[in-house]
Amino acid sequence: MQVGDIYVSAPGKAILHGEHAVVHGKVALAVSLNLRSYLRLEATSTGTVGVNLPNIDTFLHWNLSELKQFAPSVTGGTGQVKLLDPDLLRRLREYVGVANGNLNTSQMATLTFLYLYLSAFGSGARELPSLTVSVWSELPTGAGLGSSAAYTVCLAAALLCASGAISSPLKEWEHTARWCQEELELINSWAFQGEMIIHGNPSGVDNAVGTWGGMLRFLAGKIIPLSRVPLLRILLTNTKVPRSTKVLVSRVKDKINKFPSVMAPVLDSVDAISCTCEKVLSEMTSEPITGEHYNALEELIDINQHHLNVMGVGHPALDTLCRITLTKGLHSKLTGAGGGGCGITLLRPETGSAVVQATVQDLKDCGFDCWETSIGGPGVQQHAPVSVKEEILEVLSRY
Amino acid sequence: MQVGDIYVSAPGKAILHGEHAVVHGKVALAVSLNLRSYLRLEATSTGTVGVNLPNIDTFLHWNLSELKQFAPSVTGGTGQVKLLDPDLLRRLREYVGVANGNLNTSQMATLTFLYLYLSAFGSGARELPSLTVSVWSELPTGAGLGSSAAYTVCLAAALLCASGAISSPLKEWEHTARWCQEELELINSWAFQGEMIIHGNPSGVDNAVGTWGGMLRFLAGKIIPLSRVPLLRILLTNTKVPRSTKVLVSRVKDKINKFPSVMAPVLDSVDAISCTCEKVLSEMTSEPITGEHYNALEELIDINQHHLNVMGVGHPALDTLCRITLTKGLHSKLTGAGGGGCGITLLRPETGSAVVQATVQDLKDCGFDCWETSIGGPGVQQHAPVSVKEEILEVLSRY
Repeated sequence: MQVGDIYVSAPGKAILHGEHAVVHGKVALAVSLNLRSYLRLEATSTGTVGVNLPNIDTFLHWNLSELKQFAPSVTGGTGQVKLLDPDLLRRLREYVGVANGNLNTSQMATLTFLYLYLSAFGSGARELPSLTVSVWSELPTGAGLGSSAAYTVCLAAALLCASGAISSPLKEWEHTARWCQEELELINSWAFQGEMIIHGNPSGVDNAVGTWGGMLRFLAGKIIPLSRVPLLRILLTNTKVPRSTKVLVSRVKDKINKFPSVMAPVLDSVDAISCTCEKVLSEMTSEPITGEHYNALEELIDINQHHLNVMGVGHPALDTLCRITLTKGLHSKLTGAGGGGCGITLLRPETGSAVVQATVQDLKDCGFDCWETSIGGPGVQQHAPVSVKEEILEVLSRY
Repeated sequence: MQVGDIYVSAPGKAILHGEHAVVHGKVALAVSLNLRSYLRLEATSTGTVGVNLPNIDTFLHWNLSELKQFAPSVTGGTGQVKLLDPDLLRRLREYVGVANGNLNTSQMATLTFLYLYLSAFGSGARELPSLTVSVWSELPTGAGLGSSAAYTVCLAAALLCASGAISSPLKEWEHTARWCQEELELINSWAFQGEMIIHGNPSGVDNAVGTWGGMLRFLAGKIIPLSRVPLLRILLTNTKVPRSTKVLVSRVKDKINKFPSVMAPVLDSVDAISCTCEKVLSEMTSEPITGEHYNALEELIDINQHHLNVMGVGHPALDTLCRITLTKGLHSKLTGAGGGGCGITLLRPETGSAVVQATVQDLKDCGFDCWETSIGGPGVQQHAPVSVKEEILEVLSRY
């Protein structure tokens, strides 16, 4: 079986409001982060399947004759799936030599690729296709920005597309195209399988953001994509202070147990911040955007950052981020687990590039990584090569 | 009529928790601040009444023959009072030449002195006594630390004592002594009259703290002295950033109106902080004090400081205070109106004097005033001269 070349991309994720509070039954808002992962799927005639992940130094290929052994075990077809095939997973772990113990990033990415490849192509009577998948991501890995989900969403979209399970939505004259709702559901459910392989028990938020883009409301395990949100310019800063999400989550829990009457209202306030923010963003799509909208978004960011400090998930590096950006009139909060990690800074439409550049420089001078990007952009897309940045095309064609 | 020499002192006030929230019906905790005002009442035979207030450059005296004109109008006697005598007040304003317009600090202090002096001595058939009152305060004026109440409490105690309306509790062998509950009630009600002259519509918290000392719970206009509280070492820092309480109170109100669902829980959390703090302090008097008690007090201070920032009453100078003290492992919050003004820093029992001195120096290097003092100490006291610091005795005897 031979397939054509396919280019797809999927965005990362940031938590706009509600991190930690969501663990305690409050609303969180997850938004797409326009730092994207790009995938090229290339049909080959080498009789091999290859995967190139230059971000994590992973370049592997397998002979189709060897992979054939796994094909018959897959019986589910390419419909929506909720559960992993434990037998296939176990046999693949043995095959790639990681039967026991914790997998590193490269091993998890490899296992996920092989699992999804075999699930997409191994179910029918057809032969496995010879192809090479290359992925390059603008996202830092392990920073809580959904880089694994962007990877699995890209994989799901490209492999399902190549297998014919979903259409190839790109018309000849288009630069980018998106799938219909039903096909996005399929992509999302497949990407979620990949997330399960990588994270064990993922919330499903990251792959949903990667698939639908825009903004999602997340409450008590339910994920609701919001119809229309404005695109917001932001700075995304990685303090590079390492942290453990698990430790931070349990720190918040301890504080709630220690001061229940003090902390419960703080979680209620965070919940109200998410709801108020959602309302402001929805107003911004239905009426002319004013400075007042941005003032409200900034105030909500400041309040939530204080609340996150109250929960005990702040960090001096994040205080520095807030202080530096505030000297430029810009408002920041941590995003995700906190205790270091990443922060977002809202840029206003009128914020000039001189201010942005000076702020980025000041943050880099602190040893932070910093990107000017946006939130609320589109989810997974198919690209014509012409719509992919030159340097990314170059990386994807190198292997 | 001739009276003996009397030395009294009364403490200042700090808000430990609940500033601003108290305006919206939540609990606040007011504590005595062991920066005190000291008063010496000296019997003279000059046929004059004098008042010396070196802190505010006020040195005045009046002939008894002139003051006699005001005596008959006072009919209330020296019982508990709730209302000012508007006629006496109007005539005194005319007499000291401030019939109209706003009074400055010196004029308000003078008017209050004359009013309380005439109320204490003018009601009977007795002659007005010849005496000089000198007051020296360790408190900065106009910094929200209850300096006016410390003054009026001292005045009330000394004048009521000199008039015989209350006893002179000091025994010959004692250094300091306090009045009984009933006499304290009288002192407090008279001091409140002085506060009404100075502030127009005072809450009554400041004079209550000056009278009873320790800690008071203040809720919906009701003031409840708490029986036993530990003495806590603190730093009191005056950032000297000027602010308007009125502007700050209305800023909080605006924020509540703008984001009601976000802000209401914050006020609830502040309320819970006051109640939790009260509980911790009460435990500290009934069980052995541990590091855990101090950890809890520190965490509550940090949380409330964040909440006050959320209310919009923070200030960069207060952030600096918090940051500097935190580098020494000490926790601070603003006290009172915020927007500048004063902050308190909790010292732990084990905090060494080297750390304290270094912290004080760092804060002074920022241009702040800083005192090492305590909260929770006694209210108004009568002193034997030997129990008054040498330098204060010297100031009080200079005039």
